[in-house]
Amino acid sequence: MGDCSVGLVQEMQKTVYVGTFVQSKSLQELDICAKGAVGVDENGRIAFTSRGFDNLEAVLKEHEGWSGAKVIEGQKNGFFFPGFIDTHIHAPQYPNAGIFGKSTLLDWLNTYTFPTESSFSSLSKARLIYNRVVRRTLSHGTTTAAYYATIHVDSTNLLASICLSNGQRAFIGRVCMDADLSPPTYRDVSAADSVTSTLAVINYIRQLDPQGALIAPIITPRFAPSCTAHALSLLGALQHEHNLLAQTHISENPSEVELVASLFPSASSYADVYDAAGLLNPRTILAHAVHLTPEETALVRARGAKVAHCPASNSALTSGVAPVRALLDHGIDVGLGTDVSGGYSPSVLEAARQAVLVSRLRSVIVAADREREQREKKGSGAEGETEGCDDAEHAKLSTEEALFLATRGGAQVVGLADRIGAFEVGMEWDAQMIGLGALVGGGNHGQDSTEDVEAEGAESETVEDVETSPVDIFGWESWAERVDKWVFNGDDRNTLAVWVKGRLVHKREGVEV
Amino acid sequence: MGDCSVGLVQEMQKTVYVGTFVQSKSLQELDICAKGAVGVDENGRIAFTSRGFDNLEAVLKEHEGWSGAKVIEGQKNGFFFPGFIDTHIHAPQYPNAGIFGKSTLLDWLNTYTFPTESSFSSLSKARLIYNRVVRRTLSHGTTTAAYYATIHVDSTNLLASICLSNGQRAFIGRVCMDADLSPPTYRDVSAADSVTSTLAVINYIRQLDPQGALIAPIITPRFAPSCTAHALSLLGALQHEHNLLAQTHISENPSEVELVASLFPSASSYADVYDAAGLLNPRTILAHAVHLTPEETALVRARGAKVAHCPASNSALTSGVAPVRALLDHGIDVGLGTDVSGGYSPSVLEAARQAVLVSRLRSVIVAADREREQREKKGSGAEGETEGCDDAEHAKLSTEEALFLATRGGAQVVGLADRIGAFEVGMEWDAQMIGLGALVGGGNHGQDSTEDVEAEGAESETVEDVETSPVDIFGWESWAERVDKWVFNGDDRNTLAVWVKGRLVHKREGVEV
Repeated sequence: MGDCSVGLVQEMQKTVYVGTFVQSKSLQELDICAKGAVGVDENGRIAFTSRGFDNLEAVLKEHEGWSGAKVIEGQKNGFFFPGFIDTHIHAPQYPNAGIFGKSTLLDWLNTYTFPTESSFSSLSKARLIYNRVVRRTLSHGTTTAAYYATIHVDSTNLLASICLSNGQRAFIGRVCMDADLSPPTYRDVSAADSVTSTLAVINYIRQLDPQGALIAPIITPRFAPSCTAHALSLLGALQHEHNLLAQTHISENPSEVELVASLFPSASSYADVYDAAGLLNPRTILAHAVHLTPEETALVRARGAKVAHCPASNSALTSGVAPVRALLDHGIDVGLGTDVSGGYSPSVLEAARQAVLVSRLRSVIVAADREREQREKKGSGAEGETEGCDDAEHAKLSTEEALFLATRGGAQVVGLADRIGAFEVGMEWDAQMIGLGALVGGGNHGQDSTEDVEAEGAESETVEDVETSPVDIFGWESWAERVDKWVFNGDDRNTLAVWVKGRLVHKREGVEV
Repeated sequence: MGDCSVGLVQEMQKTVYVGTFVQSKSLQELDICAKGAVGVDENGRIAFTSRGFDNLEAVLKEHEGWSGAKVIEGQKNGFFFPGFIDTHIHAPQYPNAGIFGKSTLLDWLNTYTFPTESSFSSLSKARLIYNRVVRRTLSHGTTTAAYYATIHVDSTNLLASICLSNGQRAFIGRVCMDADLSPPTYRDVSAADSVTSTLAVINYIRQLDPQGALIAPIITPRFAPSCTAHALSLLGALQHEHNLLAQTHISENPSEVELVASLFPSASSYADVYDAAGLLNPRTILAHAVHLTPEETALVRARGAKVAHCPASNSALTSGVAPVRALLDHGIDVGLGTDVSGGYSPSVLEAARQAVLVSRLRSVIVAADREREQREKKGSGAEGETEGCDDAEHAKLSTEEALFLATRGGAQVVGLADRIGAFEVGMEWDAQMIGLGALVGGGNHGQDSTEDVEAEGAESETVEDVETSPVDIFGWESWAERVDKWVFNGDDRNTLAVWVKGRLVHKREGVEV
């Protein structure tokens, strides 16, 4: 890993990526191009794409000035995939990843989260951990992350610098929390402090990355219970004034929903608390949305706000299973979040896997509800068709859909759908090179049923590496099946190299790019 | 991996393992010995254990003949842990791991499973895939597996040979299925064929491993829908005659439960089908048990049959969430199964992680049920305390409990609780050496809040390896927290070496043992 930052100092040059490309065509469909080429210019922008050609030279000649371009070939048993977008991650909580016991949201905050976050008054601690988070998430293929930091301006600024120096695209949120929920030692002293400190971070980042090429500030009221209505309103105004993204949490946990109702008695719902503050708009990311009422879902849809779905976290903290299908059916944009450390894993691939799995359990819950409704109808003598089975089936997310959420969906959520999340001309080259290892048995496996092999000769003939890749490809799998195998058994070992805006920002040892 | 089978030819010698040891004390509690020693004799049996000593030499002198023993030290940031026991895995389905689409049990069998299994008439294919499964599961720390093979006697025998030659403890089941559910090309021709073919495997394995040191046959009627009542009875008799374990599936999926009711109209329940055949007894492993009725649970308990809980599979195939807590509360022994390839992962650590996570969703389901009951009570004017919250909370499994199921629980399920699953004198050394990598930042991280570090100096100072271990330990974590981090972010990279019955059967490249 000594060369992990090589990409940052390299001269940017025209580069053509050649190999198999996989990306989302639509929510339901992957676009798999078995042989393609993507030309990326000196600014990291995709200048052309080509598919199904015989002769690369001929392709390059079609594009003026590309004949001498650098060529990077993908893995034979692998593909280029758009970089992952993590729409919800708490960088300072990373040291607690995997540690949550049997807690749920509100006690988890007090037991694990606030003590850890408050220690980020130490810049040396922040440097250690933020560097690690950024290196880790890059190694998992996260090219863009919407980070929550802490209330500390200096260490939040440091996170911005670390993202920039490591080449990760990031939204950096200085967390605002001026209400009594938080401990007195880790809290904004006033609503004005929330604004002033946020402004300090906005100004810092504007100097750090004046063009906003990679880093942008994001307005971050922690969540309604930890903010006063006054602070929320001021932050809503700040978002509009500076035309920034905002991010917060909503309806993660039933006790939290009750708490909000008691803290904001004049609001008609949790969503209404944010709406009243001007924080419900197309540039706002709402994490979780597990327990929205139908009225709230309609409001979120009407305002165009986005949702960060965090399945690993929702299971770990016993929050429930978000009704992702219903959100999508309402036309709400949804991305995936790792929600470290409510979520135990910094990997968006793990989030995609969990999104598929929990959608199956959502299906089970819906099926049980429908069955009960039908029984009750029968009991009451009422007539009517049940849509039970279809509804339950409909709740399931496919691998393709989870990967859409991880890329194009995430891009919609962070307002960059025209720049990242796919391989289209004019977009920026935020990409990962996926390798699935050597074919098991070299791809040869006899189907000869009459073969007479002595069982005594059973010693492993194919002593192959089980270390390089956790995924086993035998050679008969279609590309779609290889993608499924990657989603379910793959990990950072399969992410061989990562680029952001055309720059190499991570590669595994021994990989040539 | 060229040296992966070194352990199999090495001279067995007295060996003392020194370091941190973690094992289950009870269902709820881990026994963590920060500094201990375990002496393993030439037969792979634990001869003594010692904890909290200052001087290893002095410890060895206490035990006659141990002064010159080989010493193997564990990792400083790691621990020895009992080998995992996979109580339910279909070896031939491994090539399909991760491929299941949106299918549920019955269509999944026809679409993916039967076509793949039927191809195991080819011994060369069986050799390739069985070698891979055994190497993979060993690399994940599985020291004992209860395998389903296929209907083919020769390739089932080959699986037994491959397990023995790789040193994995295994129960080998020739799958019996004589009913119409299975395709005509992949089915036993008769109930008698089920028995004859099973006997052929029993006889082969008894010659292969006469003492039953590592390998044993296991009676394996696939599941009620694919067996006639006659075959089930014959197999029940065979189990008793040969005093063997048996394994089958039960109540995985609601449609399967309905199918069994229609196929066995005279049986009072799914469990009763097996009971009538003599197959419900303390030496029987029932996979899944997601949808047992209270009466069936009581019957399983009364017969002493065991359950293999397969959470990854149950989520993937939309089967539901098994009521593990209720089974445990009834006093039923429960282990974990990967259920490859209904389950996508060959890792028992992944199964443990999923067991914890889905138990949280079980908790959500229980809470919703209780809340509804309470509403209905109120609606009907009935009085009474609700136990809702407690029940829901009670459904959650802790990390400690999941690890118990993965080791001691699994040992109970396969009838080897006196030999494996923990580090006790008289047990056999089935163990894994876990390493959690170097401490991030060398374990030093300042807490100095007054430190004034320029954000410009943000470049990664701690360019550490993110490749070796997926788990980040910073140095402040307790052993219990390190175990949690391992369970939630660990993988085969953390399983540095694996022993079965004292023999080294797997080690990662570069690890010295």
